Amino acid sequence: MTISVDADRLRDDIEATAAFGDIDAAEGRGRTVLAGTEPNRRAREYLVDRMADAGLDVTVDAVGNVAGTWVPDGVDPDAAPVAAGSHLDSVPEGGIFDGPLGVYAALEAVRAMREAGVSPDRPVTVVSFTEEEGQRFADGLLGSSVAAGERTVEEALALTDDDGVSLEAALEGIGFRGEGRLDAAEWDAWYELHVEQDTTLEEAGVPVGVVTTITGITHCEVTIRGEANHAGATHMDDRTDALAAAAELVLDVEAAANGVVATSSDSAVGTVGSLDVSPNATNVVPGLVEAGVDVRDVEYDSMETVVEAVRDTLARVEDERGVDTEFARPFDLRPTPMAERLREAAHRAGADAGLDTLDLHSGAAHDTMHVADVTDAALLFAPSRDGISHNPREWTDWDDCAAATRVLAGAIADVAGAGAD
Amino acid sequence: MTISVDADRLRDDIEATAAFGDIDAAEGRGRTVLAGTEPNRRAREYLVDRMADAGLDVTVDAVGNVAGTWVPDGVDPDAAPVAAGSHLDSVPEGGIFDGPLGVYAALEAVRAMREAGVSPDRPVTVVSFTEEEGQRFADGLLGSSVAAGERTVEEALALTDDDGVSLEAALEGIGFRGEGRLDAAEWDAWYELHVEQDTTLEEAGVPVGVVTTITGITHCEVTIRGEANHAGATHMDDRTDALAAAAELVLDVEAAANGVVATSSDSAVGTVGSLDVSPNATNVVPGLVEAGVDVRDVEYDSMETVVEAVRDTLARVEDERGVDTEFARPFDLRPTPMAERLREAAHRAGADAGLDTLDLHSGAAHDTMHVADVTDAALLFAPSRDGISHNPREWTDWDDCAAATRVLAGAIADVAGAGAD
Repeated sequence: MTISVDADRLRDDIEATAAFGDIDAAEGRGRTVLAGTEPNRRAREYLVDRMADAGLDVTVDAVGNVAGTWVPDGVDPDAAPVAAGSHLDSVPEGGIFDGPLGVYAALEAVRAMREAGVSPDRPVTVVSFTEEEGQRFADGLLGSSVAAGERTVEEALALTDDDGVSLEAALEGIGFRGEGRLDAAEWDAWYELHVEQDTTLEEAGVPVGVVTTITGITHCEVTIRGEANHAGATHMDDRTDALAAAAELVLDVEAAANGVVATSSDSAVGTVGSLDVSPNATNVVPGLVEAGVDVRDVEYDSMETVVEAVRDTLARVEDERGVDTEFARPFDLRPTPMAERLREAAHRAGADAGLDTLDLHSGAAHDTMHVADVTDAALLFAPSRDGISHNPREWTDWDDCAAATRVLAGAIADVAGAGAD
Repeated sequence: MTISVDADRLRDDIEATAAFGDIDAAEGRGRTVLAGTEPNRRAREYLVDRMADAGLDVTVDAVGNVAGTWVPDGVDPDAAPVAAGSHLDSVPEGGIFDGPLGVYAALEAVRAMREAGVSPDRPVTVVSFTEEEGQRFADGLLGSSVAAGERTVEEALALTDDDGVSLEAALEGIGFRGEGRLDAAEWDAWYELHVEQDTTLEEAGVPVGVVTTITGITHCEVTIRGEANHAGATHMDDRTDALAAAAELVLDVEAAANGVVATSSDSAVGTVGSLDVSPNATNVVPGLVEAGVDVRDVEYDSMETVVEAVRDTLARVEDERGVDTEFARPFDLRPTPMAERLREAAHRAGADAGLDTLDLHSGAAHDTMHVADVTDAALLFAPSRDGISHNPREWTDWDDCAAATRVLAGAIADVAGAGAD
């Protein structure tokens, strides 16, 4: 099924949203929209207005998740809906597409379906989740974690930011502390359209990607304790240099991920992204290093291989260098495969619209990971210029936004059992 | 010549000084005495009082260097003196011996010489240099840099701390902005007694070390620019990871220094002491690393070997990893050999007193480096328990303080041409 979408209307919504929390960027267009702030209030109110304009029934749940539902004529309002959306918040000085594209593409899909006289068998719900980016209250995927029942409403509302402000207080402050809980388990299906944040689509010249699997993510927190000492007065043989041990870890993580890529899973990645050195003075042998390790792949076994390399390195540097080490794994999500019927519907929608689609994986986490735990879920990608995101230079051509929205609309209509009137 | 020193009087002076700026330390005895602060004023006033008690003629120069001179009866007051001393300032939360031991050992040497009826041919001057530790106004060795003519009085007085307070204003505030310039070039000889800050003496069971050479010091500032990118969405093959490149640097510096130790100079050290990663988030491939490298040895050629290894690594990671690098060498002091006649006098004084002495090098910088540029200079060490310094756990046994002071007094008397009355 092909559905004509209004590319200008979609663009107007994304550009209007880009104005909330906009920043002066040297290059590109940026915005800072943290959950529960004034720019977030304005972005939310704009969305609620557009949902109302489109004739949707708008609800706000206790953690600020916004849902707008279209119940087509003659459809049981209690039937399990097809839901679609994304988020409106951003990282500090982030881009204008990451999040808003998925929300307004879903809204545009509903508007286009109604205008095309498409009549689904189920309600269609447009969703904006609270704090996907995890910049203020939690680690990320906050609203979807509640919608998927992985975190209770009470737990979420009690979360506080660095200033001790609770999510509840922040949402009340912007008028978006609603009632009840948006329950993703009640949905028949879920689609999210997002920018790719990598260059697979750009390099292939394909406007729409259909995600096969969202990679699993492990974060390891590593502490290496050596002995801080005078860099001049401490003989090389008398040192217990925490940074030299950490340097081995950095290179071993890289080598382990490269090894997995070469032998078993091309999508594996391993990164030491953060490294904090104490006392961090040029003339002092480092006594303490804390490192953050990020490991991802579509195969959990591959992730385990890289994590084992971390453990092996720590054991070796304890033995060979005399450092003490600590290892924690505070975050461990397994790979999330997307629902095959939804992926197939997306490919069909692309073919019907004469648009190329391709299968790829997502190395980034998305709200869809949580939703997939409780219902069928799928994730579509639009191209990111140069793969850049979380940056004012993030960009997706407006034509690509429209093309991906056509595929989204066709897939929703297909899955919702729509025929033309 | 042996001279009896009063171990209790020496201890009383060091302990009195320890009370100025003293801190509550979990273990040991600590103090924070930055140049030009109230604790520094009290420590200086106490010293001036003790110098006056000992009958010395006290002067304070424009940069706050304090000198107390004993002109023995019948000696030309304009004859080139033998000078000795150290500093009274400390690092934040530093120990009680680093600096004060050398100042009060020199004063005790003069007091003991006078009480023993020792009559030198030259004046003897006890010195306390301003801001040896470089914690507030400069990089260190401030007062001695002026006394050696490496920095003008005007340049020194114009230095400011992080709050914009000038050295001149700070010295005026504590009443120690004097007149003129203490000129080390006018001295016949200079001795400094200092804690070793390493374990050579402790391990050898020897109470006094005679430094052969103060190592040269090079500081290199290295910048490595890669490309910050999403740690999940960026394939291993598409990365330009600045931290992985920096990890190679850390290990190569260590290996190069170890190589020099193994082949040519046992005293060589190379350290990457500081490493700052941007953006330093677990889930972002590091885009920028700034590293501080410290290289020291008694042989300048050895230092060059390690610095060349830094350059080689940077060239290699540019080639192999596609990073951009910058290299700067903002600080480069060549090794400073100590004067042979002063070293020999110290060994003789040890032998006369029945105290073992041994030759060693200093890996740490000292005011004596500057003084050695303009006159004969020597540096003596007392043992540091476990090699710890710049820490409240810094400790030198009182017996060792007294022993080292006996050697210092004997050496000064020898060099000053003293015979017993």
